[in-house]
Amino acid sequence: MAVVVQKYGGSSLENADRIKRVAERIVNARKAGDEVVVVCSAMGDTTDELLDLAERVNPVPPEREMDMLLTAGERISNALVAMAISALGAEARSFSGSQAGVITDSAHGKARIIDVTPGRVQQALDEGYIVLVAGFQGVSQDTKDITTLGRGGSDTTAVALAAALKADVCEIYTDVDGVYSADPRIVPNAKHLKTITYEEMLEMAAAGAKVLHLRAVEYARRYGVPIHVRSSYSNKPGTTVSGSVEALPVEQALITGVAHDRSEAKITVTSVPDHPGQAAQIFRVVADAEIDIDMVVQNVSGATSGRTDITFTLSKSEGPRAVAALEKAKPQIGFDQVLYDEHVGKVSLIGAGMRSHPGVTATFCEALARAGVNIEIISTSEIRISVICRDTELDDAVRALHGAFDLGGEEEAVVYAGTGR
Amino acid sequence: MAVVVQKYGGSSLENADRIKRVAERIVNARKAGDEVVVVCSAMGDTTDELLDLAERVNPVPPEREMDMLLTAGERISNALVAMAISALGAEARSFSGSQAGVITDSAHGKARIIDVTPGRVQQALDEGYIVLVAGFQGVSQDTKDITTLGRGGSDTTAVALAAALKADVCEIYTDVDGVYSADPRIVPNAKHLKTITYEEMLEMAAAGAKVLHLRAVEYARRYGVPIHVRSSYSNKPGTTVSGSVEALPVEQALITGVAHDRSEAKITVTSVPDHPGQAAQIFRVVADAEIDIDMVVQNVSGATSGRTDITFTLSKSEGPRAVAALEKAKPQIGFDQVLYDEHVGKVSLIGAGMRSHPGVTATFCEALARAGVNIEIISTSEIRISVICRDTELDDAVRALHGAFDLGGEEEAVVYAGTGR
Repeated sequence: MAVVVQKYGGSSLENADRIKRVAERIVNARKAGDEVVVVCSAMGDTTDELLDLAERVNPVPPEREMDMLLTAGERISNALVAMAISALGAEARSFSGSQAGVITDSAHGKARIIDVTPGRVQQALDEGYIVLVAGFQGVSQDTKDITTLGRGGSDTTAVALAAALKADVCEIYTDVDGVYSADPRIVPNAKHLKTITYEEMLEMAAAGAKVLHLRAVEYARRYGVPIHVRSSYSNKPGTTVSGSVEALPVEQALITGVAHDRSEAKITVTSVPDHPGQAAQIFRVVADAEIDIDMVVQNVSGATSGRTDITFTLSKSEGPRAVAALEKAKPQIGFDQVLYDEHVGKVSLIGAGMRSHPGVTATFCEALARAGVNIEIISTSEIRISVICRDTELDDAVRALHGAFDLGGEEEAVVYAGTGR
Repeated sequence: MAVVVQKYGGSSLENADRIKRVAERIVNARKAGDEVVVVCSAMGDTTDELLDLAERVNPVPPEREMDMLLTAGERISNALVAMAISALGAEARSFSGSQAGVITDSAHGKARIIDVTPGRVQQALDEGYIVLVAGFQGVSQDTKDITTLGRGGSDTTAVALAAALKADVCEIYTDVDGVYSADPRIVPNAKHLKTITYEEMLEMAAAGAKVLHLRAVEYARRYGVPIHVRSSYSNKPGTTVSGSVEALPVEQALITGVAHDRSEAKITVTSVPDHPGQAAQIFRVVADAEIDIDMVVQNVSGATSGRTDITFTLSKSEGPRAVAALEKAKPQIGFDQVLYDEHVGKVSLIGAGMRSHPGVTATFCEALARAGVNIEIISTSEIRISVICRDTELDDAVRALHGAFDLGGEEEAVVYAGTGR
């Protein structure tokens, strides 16, 4: 008997009818003979509604109370799914994150999982129940307060439970039927990928592919949990994320796909004194404001001026705070000005085969040049090349790369509306 | 430093503005030097919305999951009140019922409190925090599952916490400013009561006065917790519930008030064989369906027929189930028919002085007769007389009794819209 962990996103649960449909799928899995553990996100807009209420009573709410508030959303959806399962004649028990043994640190709003002790979950499985666990939440090891795991939290809950229960697979149900070689809304003949390695999926997620969250993939890689990304609206096979790039035959994989990201902004700090440690000061200021940066480039210093420009990208949502923090630190760092640019896009090419096939970078740059896309920043990893360009040129860039590396499938991809959480 | 437990009902919390107003009242109490513990019900319509969602996924939802679902409502309101308190510069911590140590039996939907172990609440108080506790919920001692306390649950949570913390007073904030000698919507000169004993309040609550729930008053009496019923919309003194009828000087109290109840129905089982145990069988059938009955009357048996009619009252909401259960048991009990009547009302006169003043029953019946109200059933306790009459005559009956016992105050009572939970 296989142990299967299934995770359903908020859009799959946004009303009573969708909840019933999810319940049918769960009961079918149980009837097929599997032991089933289900992790649900909050229903549709619940989280946004709660955030809105919080904003109205306190624009800067205490994080501990924010976690107490938001975790109500997942309790509601899980209890409702348990009821819908019961209406189909099967038996289910729902547990909060705390009851399911999801133990975290005390960083409210972005807690990290320290341990999963699924004693009650295992016992309920042994007694024949379908088990539901509220995603996105845990309990702090030190303070016993309720915590939330932050973005992608429910995916992470599912993978962590799968690891702790030694599940055979963690199925992530979403509104697309897996991972594609590019966004089918931009590239109509994008190819559906049957399998992808953890490393490639990590690079795809980091480069903007929204189908899976980085943290969940990292967790799955660490514990060797196979993830199966599937659509909650069809029975088509999805994409299996498993295995390592190292284990791939050199000839098998070349390029996996093209990812893009519209959520970043670019900051340039001009005329920074070119002494050792000046760049570090800039990044320290941003880090102290708890803002993550993505790509970084430092222009070659002008030989005579002794000054240099430093450019980096970050999430648009953090942009204004980063600019304010830098402006405040201007006297001590001594730069000229902070330039902020929201009209950028990022396009990335990902593929395990890149390691062993020279010439990929050249083909990459030629394809963008032919499409009239100007490269503003470029950065590479062993299995990824990313560039920043104008946001207006982003779709062209995605199509140009997808075509140049011959990634297309034979049929047109099916596009679903909406995105999961 | 006094320890004060405050409880706010759902209508006092139905939107962000009301939550802010409640937060101000709480912070003022803290600033006045008290240690403050607050119990909040779910916001306004939250519970109804959750019940509606549950109904749509499963018309007969499992009770365990219903409790998991409904308890989300109180977590939301408590976290929001904590945030609103923080916005006023004070510090608050909210706890779920389970975290606050509210330990219950496993009767989902109507759990009884077994023990309150408020270690975390006391610690947070000692650290200077205002403490919020989600009302209406607890955790089962045996199964560690989340439970709810049923109707009046948040009042009971507040009183139980007050008892466990040895609080000086338990303030119940609602939409009226206390207990009146009758419903001011029916009797315009109903008198506001400054104090009332536990026993009288119990009789008033059992007789239909909605301002406090029976269970909470019972709990308060057992542990000697003074309750102060107040309006959350004014600073007027409310009604203090404390002390025993036994301790009252005989001369002081005569009649306290008139209560009425429109929520009951009347069932008559006709021509029941008049053997010992036949009535018991009828009540066993109803009890086995977990339905509470209120008043009972058995007609004098016809001398020749050897058969009798048995009449009792119960909540209208349970009526159809009771009728069905009785019809099912008809062959074994052997009665003629079950008559069901929803068009009844109950009016009660309550007063500690009744014990020592003869003639109250006579005055009572005369007053109703003068008002043209026909008495269908009558039942009495040491400090209460209740009768069932036609529902269309109920308001007249209330006014007639209020007048006959001279219960009116000098000014007109202020009437608020809505009712608390």
